Amino acid sequence: MPKIVDHDERRATISSAAADLIAEVGIEATTMKQIGARAGRTTGAVTHYFADKDDVVLAALLLADGSIQRRFTAALTTPPNLVEALLAALPNDAESRRDWRVWRVFSDYATRSESLLMQYRASSASWLDTATEMVAYHAGCSADEARLDAEMLVAVVDAIGDEASVDPDSWPPERQRELLEHCFAKIGRVA
Amino acid sequence: MPKIVDHDERRATISSAAADLIAEVGIEATTMKQIGARAGRTTGAVTHYFADKDDVVLAALLLADGSIQRRFTAALTTPPNLVEALLAALPNDAESRRDWRVWRVFSDYATRSESLLMQYRASSASWLDTATEMVAYHAGCSADEARLDAEMLVAVVDAIGDEASVDPDSWPPERQRELLEHCFAKIGRVA
Repeated sequence: MPKIVDHDERRATISSAAADLIAEVGIEATTMKQIGARAGRTTGAVTHYFADKDDVVLAALLLADGSIQRRFTAALTTPPNLVEALLAALPNDAESRRDWRVWRVFSDYATRSESLLMQYRASSASWLDTATEMVAYHAGCSADEARLDAEMLVAVVDAIGDEASVDPDSWPPERQRELLEHCFAKIGRVA
Repeated sequence: MPKIVDHDERRATISSAAADLIAEVGIEATTMKQIGARAGRTTGAVTHYFADKDDVVLAALLLADGSIQRRFTAALTTPPNLVEALLAALPNDAESRRDWRVWRVFSDYATRSESLLMQYRASSASWLDTATEMVAYHAGCSADEARLDAEMLVAVVDAIGDEASVDPDSWPPERQRELLEHCFAKIGRVA
């Protein structure tokens, strides 16, 4: 009987190995060969699933971004506690620190590739949409009225994510929570 | 007559070449040899002034950070218009985009070096102090009362700096100004 190969799983294993390496040593120092070794595969297996390095970098970004989104969504309660959901998405363990580091190095790398810049824009826009919905819900206003508050909230979340993944000791969860709560207090509620 | 060598100037020229390269190709891909070539010097000249790559990366960060601070300070008027001063510090031309890109790649690189992480902390703390003074002035309150608003302001400035250096087309000066003004409006003034 021929071996049944789960291609999606194999792609996912390679993407995850790429995300680990990118977070550890940066994109420039990550090679297709190292990605293969980390995933327990040959370099040929990597090039079978990914056309080139940009392609695997993109897959690593999508994996990290999806992982952040999943933690955020899983922590959403009814009614939503937005501070807790954002805290669940922020860097507070090895996986989430990895995901935020992939995001950061990806954003820099995207300045050197038009197609990766397109993905950077799409992912950023998607988070801004989510934030706009959250703020509109929180403040009881329209999406249009929520836009600038949402940009402010995204800025604060991104800054916490960057700082807490670079310097976790200076950004324990309590400090993250305090700043998020302050930000929501400033956004305020429409009566 | 012996040639008079201006060592400070030579160090500065090499640091500036390093900052340019780091912004263009990333830290990992930047070599001592390339830095020398870019500065119009030999690799030996680079290693004469800088012990190793971390040392020249640090010099590039200090140069970029100093350059951001200088634009901010130069734009401060009496009485200070804080939005205009911050806009002058944010990425709006080739030099300021370079400076913010150096900051971003430095922050990631700092996760792999204890001494660079110390400098990252010191530089971040210094900007937070500046922001705290600004907010205390703007809101007419004490530094203690200004702390969380200052953290929020720093977060917004950092996020704009990141986004506008990665994707300048999406972050023209008008959009930067609108978000900064919104943030100051939310911080509010103590009567």
